[in-house]
Amino acid sequence: MNLKIVLRSLGMLLVCECLTLLVPTITALIYKDGDLSSFIFTMFILLACAIPMLLIKPKDKNIYPKEGFAIVAIGWLLISFFGALPFYFSGAIPSLIDAFFESSSGFTTTGSTILSEIESLPHGILLWRCFTHWVGGMGILLLTIALLPSMGMGSMQVMKAESPGPIVGKIVPKLGSTAKILYGIYLCLTLLEVVCLMLAGMNFYDALLHSFSTVGTGGFSNRNISVGYYDSALIDGIITVFMILSGINFSLYYFILKGNLKSFWKDQELRLYLFILSAATILIMFNLLYTGYYDSVGTAFRYTSFQVASVMTTTGYMTADYNLWPMFSKILLLLIMFIGGCAGSTAGGIKISRILIGFRSILYSFKRIIHPKACYVVRLNDKKVDSQTVMSVTNYFFVYMFVFFTGVLIISINNFDAATTITSVIATLNNVGPGIEIVGPAGNFSTFSDLSKFTFSLLMIIGRVEIYPILLLVLPELWKKN
Amino acid sequence: MNLKIVLRSLGMLLVCECLTLLVPTITALIYKDGDLSSFIFTMFILLACAIPMLLIKPKDKNIYPKEGFAIVAIGWLLISFFGALPFYFSGAIPSLIDAFFESSSGFTTTGSTILSEIESLPHGILLWRCFTHWVGGMGILLLTIALLPSMGMGSMQVMKAESPGPIVGKIVPKLGSTAKILYGIYLCLTLLEVVCLMLAGMNFYDALLHSFSTVGTGGFSNRNISVGYYDSALIDGIITVFMILSGINFSLYYFILKGNLKSFWKDQELRLYLFILSAATILIMFNLLYTGYYDSVGTAFRYTSFQVASVMTTTGYMTADYNLWPMFSKILLLLIMFIGGCAGSTAGGIKISRILIGFRSILYSFKRIIHPKACYVVRLNDKKVDSQTVMSVTNYFFVYMFVFFTGVLIISINNFDAATTITSVIATLNNVGPGIEIVGPAGNFSTFSDLSKFTFSLLMIIGRVEIYPILLLVLPELWKKN
Repeated sequence: MNLKIVLRSLGMLLVCECLTLLVPTITALIYKDGDLSSFIFTMFILLACAIPMLLIKPKDKNIYPKEGFAIVAIGWLLISFFGALPFYFSGAIPSLIDAFFESSSGFTTTGSTILSEIESLPHGILLWRCFTHWVGGMGILLLTIALLPSMGMGSMQVMKAESPGPIVGKIVPKLGSTAKILYGIYLCLTLLEVVCLMLAGMNFYDALLHSFSTVGTGGFSNRNISVGYYDSALIDGIITVFMILSGINFSLYYFILKGNLKSFWKDQELRLYLFILSAATILIMFNLLYTGYYDSVGTAFRYTSFQVASVMTTTGYMTADYNLWPMFSKILLLLIMFIGGCAGSTAGGIKISRILIGFRSILYSFKRIIHPKACYVVRLNDKKVDSQTVMSVTNYFFVYMFVFFTGVLIISINNFDAATTITSVIATLNNVGPGIEIVGPAGNFSTFSDLSKFTFSLLMIIGRVEIYPILLLVLPELWKKN
Repeated sequence: MNLKIVLRSLGMLLVCECLTLLVPTITALIYKDGDLSSFIFTMFILLACAIPMLLIKPKDKNIYPKEGFAIVAIGWLLISFFGALPFYFSGAIPSLIDAFFESSSGFTTTGSTILSEIESLPHGILLWRCFTHWVGGMGILLLTIALLPSMGMGSMQVMKAESPGPIVGKIVPKLGSTAKILYGIYLCLTLLEVVCLMLAGMNFYDALLHSFSTVGTGGFSNRNISVGYYDSALIDGIITVFMILSGINFSLYYFILKGNLKSFWKDQELRLYLFILSAATILIMFNLLYTGYYDSVGTAFRYTSFQVASVMTTTGYMTADYNLWPMFSKILLLLIMFIGGCAGSTAGGIKISRILIGFRSILYSFKRIIHPKACYVVRLNDKKVDSQTVMSVTNYFFVYMFVFFTGVLIISINNFDAATTITSVIATLNNVGPGIEIVGPAGNFSTFSDLSKFTFSLLMIIGRVEIYPILLLVLPELWKKN
């Protein structure tokens, strides 16, 4: 591995994180809650680390796949660590491991928390908590590519390693422009939600924080009982719509901007995504009405659609305690946690397009049994998916299950009940936020051991960068000099 | 599909099932418990169905892969149905769906039961229950191939579709001889266990039934509290050893018979199998001693090694209620339920060799990231595994998880607790037997709805034939005429 180019790119990433800290710093300046120094101190540390890294002059400026993976893996660990410092320095979270958990949960857009009392925290800290969702949602390395001059030849490898989904492409020939367009769409969607929420009666600060969390599909709120605090069907509806919009591949919005509505609606991943969302909503509504949990279709629709959208886009906002729902509804919610949103969106989970390719790969092998000599290809949106990609998708399921089971085994040392043990790992690995029982919508992660909290933090990062980069780090071959 | 050859082969299978019914018929003749007529009646029905099928004269006698899969899928559904009739006719199990559950659980070597009172049943019925494990363990179609003249050209396709594991081969050039050798080894192992158990103090009848169950890795017993009834460390030890022996690929025993001990010990699947068994035993022992569940190493070893071997070989015998063990031990047991035994053994689960190939496929993709231009191959026992097989293994994980989650969703309609819902599916799909909570070692499956019992029966058969044959049945293309 070309360590110099990796270090230089990481230096640029730290500068980018330093820039993002300006947003909570300004908030702290306005509200004067006493959290200003924690941000300034963190920015100072970030710059002190970044400057020597930026002074490194690599001979070979090419970024190859392995460097791309290394930058993403180490980068996400670093930003989560440095992002935790304001929580720690301000005293909002007195334990460093708790702060690391909260920061990882923020950047990876998970939304799991170790805090039970949120509303009393300073405004800057609460904003930083939600803003990490926004920064991490579209990818902090993509943000670095958008904001700062090129990292080196082949920073496309960095985007490939960071972007969620099996197939990653540029929407315009230049990567820098691709990054700017994607962040532009992202910003517009966020501002649109701020306006909608304010029209529905939220104040600017709350609207901004909830928009960061929604569009980043994160789930942090500045209210102890999450969106349930506002108790407004209109706000629930607005957030439901924006959660669903944020679970869609952002490249598709570029089609709309170019007036190509046909390509948008014909996208097979989008169609399956909307189908699963609708089917799950209908099944759960039916289950809740049938068992008498709700007695009106309207109420059932309001709470079901919100919870389903929240869970499937892996946002994690809650307006109802689904812990009390019947088992069928709970299991269905857990299943769609695994599925997650579309590739190229801010959502977590396995991703719809992997599920699509997986099913087609199975169908392909069925057809090969029936007609062994015929020639088949796996297609997505009428384009051939090359066998290497199909292989990487099916490999992904295996490695995903391996990470999941390893996680469950480590967490089981806490000796909590089976539902807590299993769903806490589902909720963190898929970047959802809450699970059931102790980690249910009304609970939090504070009672776990430090080992568990560190494991959860790793699981969140592993889930966000889609496993490979982090696992590659432990392979000695990665660290060999070129 | 060539329906005629499929029907003729199924006719031969029914004749074979009729022959196996002679064993409980003789038992019923000896003990005169009033169950004789139920066996004779079932044999009569079997012959009445089989004879017209055997009279079919197919023009093309070739069995191609699709016919192989169809024979296995329909065959397993049929034998489970006909195998249920003695339970139903004798009045031992008054509900047909319960009888089908018990019979599927028997042939698939699962060992899950809907019965709570076992000891009062007639001797013939109890023997038939355990004997179905023995017949299904090595494969009833393989038994058909061993007992009856060739089904047609290419009955190798039938063996391939029925035998567990990703790679299936003949150990001698002729398939009929391969089947005879495998059943010979199987019979010897069974007789050896009968002798050992009798020397340890069991009577012949109990020893025979428990040997059928052990060597078939099934788990049915003629005692209400399973092997715990004998309360003998010696019997526990003997059964532990025979469970472990039955989880090994039977082809490997042929190496021993030929004096080729080196090939036996060098088998990578066997080594990983023994490693996981040992590691799980040590970890659980440590967990149980540390939490004070047991206070002596000897007792902890006795119960842990038995339970680990029972769960990993998917036998399902229990001498301790692991429901009461700490969560770490329970989760570890659940994990090894998924892994299961070796390919070509009588055990269920995903199979060690698939896990091995899966890991190597991941390693392969890691290496491709680091050195994109280098050429790698996935190997098992120093032989190249062709890319089609690797693909089918990784596809298998996906389709396995799909079946698993679908099963959990259907079972969740019962609205039982999460642990029961999830582990009942793990226990049936992997052909283990007991799960935790309601379906734990001290419980049974009687409280589930009929829909659930039918789903469990299907899951057991799907798990036994490794998914593909049953799923292929729903593909319209399979049913098209050639």
